[in-house]
Amino acid sequence: MTSALPELGLIRDETGAQTLLGYVVDLRPGDGKGRCYLDLGPQHGNRHGGLHGGIISCLLDNAMGFAASLSADPKGATRFLTISMTTQYLAPAREGRVTATGGVTGGGKSTLFVDGQLEDEAGRLLATSTGVYKRVRT
Amino acid sequence: MTSALPELGLIRDETGAQTLLGYVVDLRPGDGKGRCYLDLGPQHGNRHGGLHGGIISCLLDNAMGFAASLSADPKGATRFLTISMTTQYLAPAREGRVTATGGVTGGGKSTLFVDGQLEDEAGRLLATSTGVYKRVRT
Amino acid sequence: MTSALPELGLIRDETGAQTLLGYVVDLRPGDGKGRCYLDLGPQHGNRHGGLHGGIISCLLDNAMGFAASLSADPKGATRFLTISMTTQYLAPAREGRVTATGGVTGGGKSTLFVDGQLEDEAGRLLATSTGVYKRVRT
Amino acid sequence: MTSALPELGLIRDETGAQTLLGYVVDLRPGDGKGRCYLDLGPQHGNRHGGLHGGIISCLLDNAMGFAASLSADPKGATRFLTISMTTQYLAPAREGRVTATGGVTGGGKSTLFVDGQLEDEAGRLLATSTGVYKRVRT
Repeated sequence: MTSALPELGLIRDETGAQTLLGYVVDLRPGDGKGRCYLDLGPQHGNRHGGLHGGIISCLLDNAMGFAASLSADPKGATRFLTISMTTQYLAPAREGRVTATGGVTGGGKSTLFVDGQLEDEAGRLLATSTGVYKRVRT
Repeated sequence: MTSALPELGLIRDETGAQTLLGYVVDLRPGDGKGRCYLDLGPQHGNRHGGLHGGIISCLLDNAMGFAASLSADPKGATRFLTISMTTQYLAPAREGRVTATGGVTGGGKSTLFVDGQLEDEAGRLLATSTGVYKRVRT
Repeated sequence: MTSALPELGLIRDETGAQTLLGYVVDLRPGDGKGRCYLDLGPQHGNRHGGLHGGIISCLLDNAMGFAASLSADPKGATRFLTISMTTQYLAPAREGRVTATGGVTGGGKSTLFVDGQLEDEAGRLLATSTGVYKRVRT
Repeated sequence: MTSALPELGLIRDETGAQTLLGYVVDLRPGDGKGRCYLDLGPQHGNRHGGLHGGIISCLLDNAMGFAASLSADPKGATRFLTISMTTQYLAPAREGRVTATGGVTGGGKSTLFVDGQLEDEAGRLLATSTGVYKRVRT
């Protein structure tokens, strides 16, 4: 399957928000996971000198949304809207690269349940999330 | 109370994330609400041409965090960390100004429960949120 | 509208879970709110001598589900499934009657966003909730 | 460790809610997971003939709360309060035994992050949950 999917791989600047925040979407064939990573800089900081919780949610939402899309077509092009999302903030992130990974846990054709994890480079779990995603009718 | 609090009012560029995203914190004396607003531009867009869900969470998280801070001191300087947060995405936002408002619903000295609403200029409800915030021990 | 809806009012024992837990659904014409109440007894207690959090979720889920149903038809007969639900536990409940109230905040024909509040007899807020409900296709 | 912990094992009727609903807590030494199961009967049903969502939340809350307790002492006697909890309802449950499993994902001494899964006898995932638990100061 991988050889037919050159579009999989690293995606940058697909949306305005992606360019602004600077995260990179990393889609790998075969495992159905949505991933995106961000190299932290001072522009991502909150009042506590850590990665802003809203940006954490942003990364997790992206990874989960791409997981939803990848479950519908192998290139992740099918669009899903986030219906609801819960994030738990386990530990602060201060520097280096953080990676969000999303995976579908259940659902049907139109509504999908997805969960996500945000980890730092050492594999430490920084945040977890769950969300409901709905397929956009086209 | 208001005359003694010149710091209340519009806050810009307090954090890296705030400068990057461009939202403005709007603290008004007396009502205990945390508010922030964002004038939408293409840099805030998602795959669907609407305001990115992660940025929606970011705005709501800020408004809720400031509501927590305002409950602890009248200038909102007390720092709180977001423990968990749930956002429901009711309707897409495409242009103009969106405003997030947060208010404390309960809790004690260290743990606070807060909810939030995001509205557009016409007062249409775009998203709601609830969160748990924990006071940072200093 | 009220005179044509004799079924509105107090509903008991509609489901197995309702009979087991003993809560009463209280549908009033006109305001679109779903309500249910429970008179607390020792059979509802948790390890801390308070109302069990699961039962709190149960009451809120019922009130929110009925709010969803009432938005689709005036008697609240349309069935909705709970897709996801978040509950925040603000304060313990120990005795007397607690009442859960749910109201629709947004959504369309198939997916609805609903929030809920649980209060004691003095009107003290004990818990809040938000949920996503999906109409059952018949 | 196991031989010194005769109290681990099956726990019935510890609380009023447990007796009423009829679930069994199943604590096994060593893995730190909280578990409880319920053999479904008509008394657990909702309007759709499936297991009531509130009871699903109840089982998950119990399993997650015991996971929190087991992280604080090997017998799971330390008490934790549920601060907030999100449940996602992936699939209906209609008969047989359902088992909820909870595990701690992060946190410190007073606040813990826990997730949970509810499965049927065939191992099918019915619901997932995440929650924040706070240690009761004694």
